[in-house]
Amino acid sequence: MINWNNMDTLASFQALLKTGQVDLAQVMAGENGAKRVKKYSVPMAAGLVYNYAAKQVDDTVLEGLSKLAEEAQLAEKFEALYNGERINTGENRMVLHQLTRGQLGKAVMEDGVDKREFYVGVQQKIAEFAGKVHAGKIVNGAGERFTTVVQIGIGGSDLGPRAIYLALENWARKHGTLKMEARFISNVDPDDAAAVLDSIDVAHSLFILVSKSGTTLETLTNESFVKDALKNAGLDASKHMVAVTSQTSPLAGNDDYLTAFFMDDHIGGRYSSCSAVGGAVLSLAFGPEVFAQFLEGAAEEDKLAANKDIAKNPAMLDALIGVYERNVLGHLCTAVLPYSQALSRFPAHLQQLDMESNGKCVNRFGERVAYETGPVIFGEPGTNGQHSFYQLLHQGTTIVPLQFIGFKDSQIGTDVTIQGSTSQQKLCANVAAQIIAFACGKSDENKNKNFEGGRPSSIIIGDRLDPKALGALLSHFENKVMFQGFVWNLNSFDQEGVQLGKVLAKRVLAHETDGALKVFSDMLAI
Amino acid sequence: MINWNNMDTLASFQALLKTGQVDLAQVMAGENGAKRVKKYSVPMAAGLVYNYAAKQVDDTVLEGLSKLAEEAQLAEKFEALYNGERINTGENRMVLHQLTRGQLGKAVMEDGVDKREFYVGVQQKIAEFAGKVHAGKIVNGAGERFTTVVQIGIGGSDLGPRAIYLALENWARKHGTLKMEARFISNVDPDDAAAVLDSIDVAHSLFILVSKSGTTLETLTNESFVKDALKNAGLDASKHMVAVTSQTSPLAGNDDYLTAFFMDDHIGGRYSSCSAVGGAVLSLAFGPEVFAQFLEGAAEEDKLAANKDIAKNPAMLDALIGVYERNVLGHLCTAVLPYSQALSRFPAHLQQLDMESNGKCVNRFGERVAYETGPVIFGEPGTNGQHSFYQLLHQGTTIVPLQFIGFKDSQIGTDVTIQGSTSQQKLCANVAAQIIAFACGKSDENKNKNFEGGRPSSIIIGDRLDPKALGALLSHFENKVMFQGFVWNLNSFDQEGVQLGKVLAKRVLAHETDGALKVFSDMLAI
Repeated sequence: MINWNNMDTLASFQALLKTGQVDLAQVMAGENGAKRVKKYSVPMAAGLVYNYAAKQVDDTVLEGLSKLAEEAQLAEKFEALYNGERINTGENRMVLHQLTRGQLGKAVMEDGVDKREFYVGVQQKIAEFAGKVHAGKIVNGAGERFTTVVQIGIGGSDLGPRAIYLALENWARKHGTLKMEARFISNVDPDDAAAVLDSIDVAHSLFILVSKSGTTLETLTNESFVKDALKNAGLDASKHMVAVTSQTSPLAGNDDYLTAFFMDDHIGGRYSSCSAVGGAVLSLAFGPEVFAQFLEGAAEEDKLAANKDIAKNPAMLDALIGVYERNVLGHLCTAVLPYSQALSRFPAHLQQLDMESNGKCVNRFGERVAYETGPVIFGEPGTNGQHSFYQLLHQGTTIVPLQFIGFKDSQIGTDVTIQGSTSQQKLCANVAAQIIAFACGKSDENKNKNFEGGRPSSIIIGDRLDPKALGALLSHFENKVMFQGFVWNLNSFDQEGVQLGKVLAKRVLAHETDGALKVFSDMLAI
Repeated sequence: MINWNNMDTLASFQALLKTGQVDLAQVMAGENGAKRVKKYSVPMAAGLVYNYAAKQVDDTVLEGLSKLAEEAQLAEKFEALYNGERINTGENRMVLHQLTRGQLGKAVMEDGVDKREFYVGVQQKIAEFAGKVHAGKIVNGAGERFTTVVQIGIGGSDLGPRAIYLALENWARKHGTLKMEARFISNVDPDDAAAVLDSIDVAHSLFILVSKSGTTLETLTNESFVKDALKNAGLDASKHMVAVTSQTSPLAGNDDYLTAFFMDDHIGGRYSSCSAVGGAVLSLAFGPEVFAQFLEGAAEEDKLAANKDIAKNPAMLDALIGVYERNVLGHLCTAVLPYSQALSRFPAHLQQLDMESNGKCVNRFGERVAYETGPVIFGEPGTNGQHSFYQLLHQGTTIVPLQFIGFKDSQIGTDVTIQGSTSQQKLCANVAAQIIAFACGKSDENKNKNFEGGRPSSIIIGDRLDPKALGALLSHFENKVMFQGFVWNLNSFDQEGVQLGKVLAKRVLAHETDGALKVFSDMLAI
């Protein structure tokens, strides 16, 4: 029996509030610090490691977090989720993104359809289609091969697939599996579509229209933009477009598209990178085998997330430490800092994943909660960020917990040795140095040069950013966000907060406004 | 006589703490809301308008902020700054970035040199050089024209120039002034340089090495990377490289470079977009005339910032409202939300500008302050953000003040009409709608669909994002950050917080570590 209780009703949470706080600078110093780094480390999938030595926890706090996990029934809730319970209560939907990459529990059925078979079937259909495009069996009107794939989508149909494409583009180029270059059109700003269309060869481009409902205004608008460009180039648009949509949408079974790959209601936009939303563009760009490796990494990481022991469940542990930072230590933000240029847009994806899932003030029963929920997420790659906003992170008046990510090896492998070290070694030396600088600080009589330390961070370390490692990373953060939603007793899978703006924007466009909105509309010459 | 006092010693600040708080949803409703939008609007340069109707202020609060401006001597401090006082006390330097774009006060002299003449001289030297490159008088070893310019720099040498280039690239293409495409190499991650080099034609590329000291590790490492690529292509590197550096750096008067454009100690990295740091790459990309227009917009905005009346000084007003939000209302973050895809990296630049300037806990005399200082800045372009993190902004437990930016017209002008409106109209309708949705909210019996409102925002509205408007925007935010630093009694022009990480990274690379740092170094295989 699962109980959905608010966090502040749990005895284990109340106990955590009374637990003594760790002096991070002290515990990270000297040889005890070295022992701590070795001890507070959990293996992840694909050779990754989650290290939380520089978090403001100790065995007592961890014991408290373990009790919280138990009392909040985190493992049981995840089990219910992957077995098909309608966890997304507001929309009366299941939450099945993990099922796209593996069967964790029982068969999940809907209307006589095994959902795992449905997702695998879509993957196979995409793989066949991509294979034909790559083999030159599906070609443009002039019988020529497609060289570029363009995703038209917004929000979850854009951020995740784009971040993943950028993360693997150089890896794929290096490994000879970059089959097609990918581009993305998302913003309703006409300059976005115009600039992308200007930068590609439309005659050899395949466009993927991604909209579950087939009614997303930005996406349909940008589709028209693309169709205009195709027509202006004297091309038959229907030979250049595919749809990723639901089976009941107007885009399904529509001759305007070469084919349609289906998604369903049980995978929300921000969780859809492993569904057809990510699968189509990534399989076309990198080949279906690479996408399969990515799913494999995610599936392995999902298995770890099913573990009841937090010491063996990095996503659950990370989630609980985050709750501790938010609700006991009182920190609002978390910065995501990948020491990998390839992960340049990964923080933007996590920003959506986390803030859209848990940026809510009512619980899953629609009751206002009396505690803080989802944090503000932001970040940029290191070492760039070091020369930018790290000043505030080190010496500002507010503590911002940090999530570092680092890899031993680069993706491309081209490097240069300067002052006795390679660029990759410099990159890694910087992230190691930052962890210690933040945690331990450094006293200086000149207070302007003083570092108070005590600023918590964790790091995920891998050998190299490859498809499997990236899949594991994605799964880790998806599951972390899910577990935090369970602790806070939220529905992490709807997004009612995006609706009001849509309604008012429609009213502006229909010129049905008054008061302040009318004046702003006039100022913007609408 | 200027007094540098901590904010909490000022009677006007103490009075603000006791001022009643505005009910934003109430004051923005109905016809009073419409009047308010018209009233709370200040003209900026280049046809921009700063509208703060949706901020949580009223005439009483504004009167209090005006008194704070007076007591904190904001106008006098700016006057001292532009007249050459050594405001950057920690480093004993002047603060002269405004002087690159105009003479606001007295001549500023150093060692017999008029600094305004120095900056204008550098601009002229850059303009001549760019003119020769564009005219095919400066060419590669094979006598062919350069088509691409690549900036090698990090932090302030990267973020500002990159954001500005991206902001004007489509505008320049449309207006036939895109002389050369620009690329940027910043991260010490070897995959950054490798990917950029892979994407360009090095034989026809000109590289700008930007380092004031000539010793920035990332930048010198990436220079070697580039030189290797040039050599491997059988090219003479010295015919492809120019330097932007200080007169005393090892890069000055060095035969490895075609020429060097000088910067000095009185313009910090994050304020250097109007110096040679931005000037060289932007003049080469767009032509010196376009860069001059950009400076003109900034100069006009600077003049407004010298106004003592906050009702006529948008930067000072914005700064004061920000202080009110941070120190009276207690909000930690500010989100920057440009409804313009061209401004995709502008929030990242403002993130550095603001967080590196005011992310400090000691005042300009090195004493710990007892109040909060610089906010956390993050943001993404709308409408994309609406489909991402806006959920938390609308319905999260934490209030995040918002800075919108919008333009009536697009840059390229290509558009499509769907459902009776253009994409540009949809874009503008969305930003207008968001302001009202955040401020006024909407009650719903289903608390999951309820919007509490009361979430403050301001908007800067312009006709079109062109060089002049962009210059005005940049100046606005630079001056806002400066005024906030004055209120908080900080030195906004040094960045000691970046030093410790550098020192520790060097130690890692020299294998001179122990304890936790040694273990992390081993885990990262350094």
